[in-house]
Amino acid sequence: MKIAVMGTGVVGNTIASKLTELGHQVMMGSRTKDNEKAKSWAAENGKNASAGDYSDAAGFGEIVFNCTKGEASMEALKQAGEKNLESKIIIDLSNPLDSSKGMPPTLSISNTNSLGEEIQKAFPGSHVVKTLNTLWCGLMVNPRMLKDSHNIFMSGNNAEAKSKVKSLLKQFGWQDEEILDLGDISTARGTESYLPLWLRVYMSTNNGAFNIKIVR
Amino acid sequence: MKIAVMGTGVVGNTIASKLTELGHQVMMGSRTKDNEKAKSWAAENGKNASAGDYSDAAGFGEIVFNCTKGEASMEALKQAGEKNLESKIIIDLSNPLDSSKGMPPTLSISNTNSLGEEIQKAFPGSHVVKTLNTLWCGLMVNPRMLKDSHNIFMSGNNAEAKSKVKSLLKQFGWQDEEILDLGDISTARGTESYLPLWLRVYMSTNNGAFNIKIVR
Repeated sequence: MKIAVMGTGVVGNTIASKLTELGHQVMMGSRTKDNEKAKSWAAENGKNASAGDYSDAAGFGEIVFNCTKGEASMEALKQAGEKNLESKIIIDLSNPLDSSKGMPPTLSISNTNSLGEEIQKAFPGSHVVKTLNTLWCGLMVNPRMLKDSHNIFMSGNNAEAKSKVKSLLKQFGWQDEEILDLGDISTARGTESYLPLWLRVYMSTNNGAFNIKIVR
Repeated sequence: MKIAVMGTGVVGNTIASKLTELGHQVMMGSRTKDNEKAKSWAAENGKNASAGDYSDAAGFGEIVFNCTKGEASMEALKQAGEKNLESKIIIDLSNPLDSSKGMPPTLSISNTNSLGEEIQKAFPGSHVVKTLNTLWCGLMVNPRMLKDSHNIFMSGNNAEAKSKVKSLLKQFGWQDEEILDLGDISTARGTESYLPLWLRVYMSTNNGAFNIKIVR
């Protein structure tokens, strides 16, 4: 499958590398066509890896991963272009974290709104599926690193889009019953709001290799 | 131990009943001395159970459980009286949920503040320990109801107070390693902020008998 990965940071790098490893054709998108990080990622990841600006990547991908930082996501997707994103699935991994006032970051959008909803509103012709925003990227693509089972969540308005995203997540190693569909995109308020707890658990141990399991 | 339980709702009832079952002397506090719910709870729970207004209860207890609804907590504790609460541990189970705009509730305090911190600020001579606010009350006092282990959190400024609360939690059935100390009372922002995710998981299954386990 042709997939766009927006963002050249550690999350974008991890997701893009896993996708090429799985045999997908991946274009990493960034603000400029000559981004060094994107170019070197493409050079190191074989014939299925390429780089371009956000618009190139969105035009290329059948599915678009938003791996940009929350504060930059809206601008990146606008650069990608509404037409390029039309009818496509945007898998939104971002969190609206604001580190400008020190650590731990606060949320720039919260409680009565979410970044996932804002992206869906800005791109009504696309299908936003919020997922994987509740854990460290190393675990996103290697969930079996932990010995016990654990959970991720999905929020989105379109059932078919969520089903396609689930298939991709299973390729990452997630088991069907570990992926909990919370409902429409407004449920992204739940998972984004979990970040302040994630941050405190992380800060109490200085180790990001953890996740939550829903125990019943 | 003499313990005050503020609140006559299902949370207060569950906590107070468990405490008398464990042999503690418990006074259930409410707004008025003649509250029917508090009186009938006391009548049904043996010689160690009594009822009074918030001020009576706070004066009686060496430890005070705040089991009132978040929206009523500050007023209840003010009625309890700063002098009655002086030097005592306030175990704060409340969440700042606002249901006035429909379901699911939003948070009336969030992100850059928490109800736990507000209570600590209002009663600087007391030791506020936020805990048990992340799960259904049936599980608070019967954690072994679930087959797998699962976690609760603690936030508070005073190490000795947290240690005493931990002892009480162990009497409820919690195991030492299941109780995660997140740090000072500002970390209550983390656990209160988890509520929107709790609510979505609850709404997707209509079953409150679940909790999260930190998997490493």
